[in-house]
Amino acid sequence: MRFVLASASPARLSVLRSAGIEPLVIVSGVDEDALVDSLGPQAEPESVVTELARAKARDVLPRIAESGHSDAVVVGCDSMLLIDGELQGKPLTVDVARARWKAMAGSHATLLTGHCVIRTENGTVVDEAAECSGTVVHFSTPSDADLEAYLATGEPLQVAGSFTLDSLGGWFVDRIEGDPSSVIGIGLPLVRRLLGRVGVGIAELWRGSPVL
Amino acid sequence: MRFVLASASPARLSVLRSAGIEPLVIVSGVDEDALVDSLGPQAEPESVVTELARAKARDVLPRIAESGHSDAVVVGCDSMLLIDGELQGKPLTVDVARARWKAMAGSHATLLTGHCVIRTENGTVVDEAAECSGTVVHFSTPSDADLEAYLATGEPLQVAGSFTLDSLGGWFVDRIEGDPSSVIGIGLPLVRRLLGRVGVGIAELWRGSPVL
Repeated sequence: MRFVLASASPARLSVLRSAGIEPLVIVSGVDEDALVDSLGPQAEPESVVTELARAKARDVLPRIAESGHSDAVVVGCDSMLLIDGELQGKPLTVDVARARWKAMAGSHATLLTGHCVIRTENGTVVDEAAECSGTVVHFSTPSDADLEAYLATGEPLQVAGSFTLDSLGGWFVDRIEGDPSSVIGIGLPLVRRLLGRVGVGIAELWRGSPVL
Repeated sequence: MRFVLASASPARLSVLRSAGIEPLVIVSGVDEDALVDSLGPQAEPESVVTELARAKARDVLPRIAESGHSDAVVVGCDSMLLIDGELQGKPLTVDVARARWKAMAGSHATLLTGHCVIRTENGTVVDEAAECSGTVVHFSTPSDADLEAYLATGEPLQVAGSFTLDSLGGWFVDRIEGDPSSVIGIGLPLVRRLLGRVGVGIAELWRGSPVL
């Protein structure tokens, strides 16, 4: 059975590799803005990230079949930071990232990651399970010099919520309440539970050789 | 200024590298059992790991001078799992690791990591700061098949508390309350604060090239 990751995120790929899985990466081509618009302004934040994850997983199904893997589990994920009731994606510019850090320094926010697992057998979808993982993230207050140095690396510009937990941003996250892998982008304990719901044990998916 | 890691732990090295620091690794030769005995049975768990961290950092000081780095910050760390009031190190055997997992599955424990930062200038110690980071870890309940597969990889045998957060064990940790990097073995936000106390800003230590 092939494990397929429907994401271009190097952070998600790294989490999976460290956890014993070498996935087949097939990047989805979902129009995320259009999907969010279709859900409407009243959609719950947890629903937004979960439906984005579901759309990404479903989007790559035809290409899994084309790649010759008739038995597979595909995982789609979507992460956003919920802060003061607003969902935030990637800041993209230094100015937006700086403004967000000024607002969230010394405070906390909730990182939501939607997950969807789809199982195929003989090229046909046989089961699907989806759920959102939420983790509270407490930010420290970087000095102005440290914040400018962090922004200058470019790292926070391309990540949901303007921070990473597993790279330079880790210096500025004091604590979390929840699952750290879900903050990085793919929650291992939740993926394990979703795999269980579609009848797949996690150890079946580990590579033959141990990680350590 | 050279950042020196007084630890052989590949997990600590990996956390630092991901966070923008390529440390000089000098492994300490501290007799940990003798030090713990010298602290006596009444020593607080937080003191035990902090004093072990301090001893490790101090132990490598002569070799930093020998290696030609007169200006340096050296970081020592020690991690143990506190469960039902008892400090647990590495299980070393499959039987011990299995028994610990049977006891902690579905429950929680506190991962303590002691940290000590020592700053040298012109080969002389000018400052030292030490503190312990504690994080509550909530374990899930692996199926018998998953637990046996996990034990068979050997991974849990050589790590404090019989689990990892950043490798295969991550599938079986539902959530934490605290700093995930301290669970892996070196707490980035605490090291940043300790560096601040000895007068070093974290961004000064990042490599020239950004991580991402």
